[in-house]
Amino acid sequence: MRWRYILNIIGVLTLFFGMTMIFPLLVGLYYRDQSVFPVVESMALTVTAGIVLHLLFRRHKAEIITQREGMAIVAVGWTAVGLFGALPFYLAGGTFSFVDAVFESVSGFTTTGASILTDIEAVSRGLLFWRSFIQWLGGMGIIVLSVAILPFLGVGGMQLYKAEVPTPVPDKLKPRIRDTAMILWKVYALISLTQVVLLMFGGMSLYDALCHAFTTMPTGGFSTKNASVAHFDSVYLDMVFVVFMLLAGINFSLHYQLLRGKTLIFWQDSECRFFLGAVLLLTLLVSFDVFGTVYKTIGQALRYGSFQVVSIVTTTGYATADYEQWPAMSQLILLLCMFLGASAGSTGGGMKCLRVMLCFKYCYKELFSLIHPRAVSHIKIGGKPVSDDVMRSVLGFMALYVGLSAMSTILLAGMGVDIVTSIAAIAATIGNIGPGLGMVGPVDNYAQIPYLGKWLLIWCMLLGRLEIFTVIILVVPEFWRK
Amino acid sequence: MRWRYILNIIGVLTLFFGMTMIFPLLVGLYYRDQSVFPVVESMALTVTAGIVLHLLFRRHKAEIITQREGMAIVAVGWTAVGLFGALPFYLAGGTFSFVDAVFESVSGFTTTGASILTDIEAVSRGLLFWRSFIQWLGGMGIIVLSVAILPFLGVGGMQLYKAEVPTPVPDKLKPRIRDTAMILWKVYALISLTQVVLLMFGGMSLYDALCHAFTTMPTGGFSTKNASVAHFDSVYLDMVFVVFMLLAGINFSLHYQLLRGKTLIFWQDSECRFFLGAVLLLTLLVSFDVFGTVYKTIGQALRYGSFQVVSIVTTTGYATADYEQWPAMSQLILLLCMFLGASAGSTGGGMKCLRVMLCFKYCYKELFSLIHPRAVSHIKIGGKPVSDDVMRSVLGFMALYVGLSAMSTILLAGMGVDIVTSIAAIAATIGNIGPGLGMVGPVDNYAQIPYLGKWLLIWCMLLGRLEIFTVIILVVPEFWRK
Repeated sequence: MRWRYILNIIGVLTLFFGMTMIFPLLVGLYYRDQSVFPVVESMALTVTAGIVLHLLFRRHKAEIITQREGMAIVAVGWTAVGLFGALPFYLAGGTFSFVDAVFESVSGFTTTGASILTDIEAVSRGLLFWRSFIQWLGGMGIIVLSVAILPFLGVGGMQLYKAEVPTPVPDKLKPRIRDTAMILWKVYALISLTQVVLLMFGGMSLYDALCHAFTTMPTGGFSTKNASVAHFDSVYLDMVFVVFMLLAGINFSLHYQLLRGKTLIFWQDSECRFFLGAVLLLTLLVSFDVFGTVYKTIGQALRYGSFQVVSIVTTTGYATADYEQWPAMSQLILLLCMFLGASAGSTGGGMKCLRVMLCFKYCYKELFSLIHPRAVSHIKIGGKPVSDDVMRSVLGFMALYVGLSAMSTILLAGMGVDIVTSIAAIAATIGNIGPGLGMVGPVDNYAQIPYLGKWLLIWCMLLGRLEIFTVIILVVPEFWRK
Repeated sequence: MRWRYILNIIGVLTLFFGMTMIFPLLVGLYYRDQSVFPVVESMALTVTAGIVLHLLFRRHKAEIITQREGMAIVAVGWTAVGLFGALPFYLAGGTFSFVDAVFESVSGFTTTGASILTDIEAVSRGLLFWRSFIQWLGGMGIIVLSVAILPFLGVGGMQLYKAEVPTPVPDKLKPRIRDTAMILWKVYALISLTQVVLLMFGGMSLYDALCHAFTTMPTGGFSTKNASVAHFDSVYLDMVFVVFMLLAGINFSLHYQLLRGKTLIFWQDSECRFFLGAVLLLTLLVSFDVFGTVYKTIGQALRYGSFQVVSIVTTTGYATADYEQWPAMSQLILLLCMFLGASAGSTGGGMKCLRVMLCFKYCYKELFSLIHPRAVSHIKIGGKPVSDDVMRSVLGFMALYVGLSAMSTILLAGMGVDIVTSIAAIAATIGNIGPGLGMVGPVDNYAQIPYLGKWLLIWCMLLGRLEIFTVIILVVPEFWRK
């Protein structure tokens, strides 16, 4: 492990990241609010730290990155950015203690959307812009991670995507990351821009439209309003959000292919079909459950049912209804959605549809082979057989996901949190959703979670966002052996 | 599928089963209670049904049973016995509606121990004896199932045990089942008898000692008292129960080997080591959690902590404390215990320690292979490598277990049951534990569960007890194709 080289890369990352603080600074200056000084200070600190790191280790370069180094870069990079991103909140003081500032920042970068703010609207506009903007940056990071880095690290079955990304045949890691990332970032920016226009068309101010588009595309879910999207109370806006949350939950390379003229690609891709089918089914189940019990008309049941299901299953976390007032079945379906998550290769979290789909096929294959012990059958995705290696990674991922969730839930409960809140808070952070159930429901926040619990949840957000393996591997002793 | 041959076997099974009703009849006659008539009627009906089935299909014999037929026999046999076993309850009338009688009977045969009785002590002694006795019979069935049948059907990784059972090299299925079953039944009866003596030594009547030994060894958990084992309130009896519940949670072939002089076998067997280690760790965690918050002395915390942990992890379900009054962490640990379960090859339910252990090793291997992509490593149990086939079965089992639990939980909630109760009721029935949390906690019962919910839970008990595959395979269309 060439740590000096890794620190060199982290230095460059931090430097560029510090420079992006110019955007909240401009917003703060425009609105002449209190965010200007903390942002300037943070920017100076971050840029300096980046330059120092880079200069200290600038002689350490490498042509080829090993798998282990790749994982270290991902884990350390995300943590560093999470810590530097917390500076504007921490230096602004007020509601933000150190752990709260880190919580809010990591929740942003991991596109979780869990917040410790009890009164969002009391925070200055510059800071709120920053809060939304880091989710957008986090989403860009996820795209690189899931489409360009993880497939090469062989993590959690993401090897499947090795061949699918529309770039020239890769020679080594570096140019591939750059090319793929550029294409997908353009798609990401294009969709975000479209959403800004459509939101403004529905009556939102440019500021609110920007902040919300910044948190829709990365399936983040931070809002500038205390009541989240419910604040706007508009059928049109709800529909815009539902459509764009769904888009954000679909593999971004499909969007690229769609833009290049493959109009049926959403239907042709088996994961996308599974994802949209699951959303439809779960929406109908929830709408049926809340119709009559909570809402008087079918229209209302479908409007609020679809919004909440899409928001949770894409792991965005916006709310237009307090689903804790819904019947138990709907709440449990939403809890299931937290584990299911969106498509692999999207900005969504959770276990991902692709893996759940492969797991279904795996179980069916097991049953089939009990009935026909001598028959040879293969698991296929989109007509192509899935290799044993991929299947192994996928099952290992799911086992770790469920196992670590269970352990973290017990830990959180040990800190004095009740059963339902513990289960849902862990599911909502490891799945990068945001709101959970109980104390951390859609109209509550994470302020009441005990101090150590907040650190546990910060760890869960990173764990889930970086696809478990890249983080958990750092605590395996074998990783540190020469 | 030769259904006539299967029905012939079911006929013989039913006939023998009907004859065992002589025992509750004798108890009823001794106490001259109201159970005599319903039991006589049930016995007549069951024996007649058995004879008729056997006579109708007696010409249909087979030398070799196929895998599919084996699974059909297991699933149909358990269901038939569950239905006929419900007759004494149903014919006694009173508290028992049809669904309640079937619930109580299936809960007995699957050694679950979930009850719909609100006042157990009001039921006649003959019926209570029957209720405990069917758990003991169920336990005998499980021993045959898990040590002699499932390994040959290749279900859920039980193939691992093919070579471990102390019998001559198998030629075909039939003689093997007989020999293995006889040996292990003797062990089962011997331990049960020992427990009866030790319980009576602690002041229990012969009747209570018999009824409780009948429900300890199969990890059943039915008691003759409303307050379960708490009724007796004796440290000595608590300890006897803890020891015998632990014995019941250990692979029965290890007991056989212990009796043949292998004194260190519990330590040598890696699953047993894992099981006892997990019990110790979880007991300490729970005792630490309840010490100070619920109990004032360390002695009390350990006494009640160990009893509840052992009772749940072995999937017995006796209670000496209302653990719903315990802190959230302890409750979640008990919920985790419901999923963990006891050893494979014991009478315990749940996912089983062996599978969880294999799953841990699998995850570690995945992490290891990310660090050393070129290294070849094998998963081993007790020094022997585990084949890919077994590992596949185990993972398929666990995925189905968790997936079906999640779906059933949502279904139960859809019937109007609250979140915590739904989660725990499904975990407690699919894992064959008995008491759960919420409405079905250790001082409550299943009487309040809605009508359809009871049928769902009956299905879950069978599903869990017959190791998922044997039951779920019956709903796969492929199974019914020629």
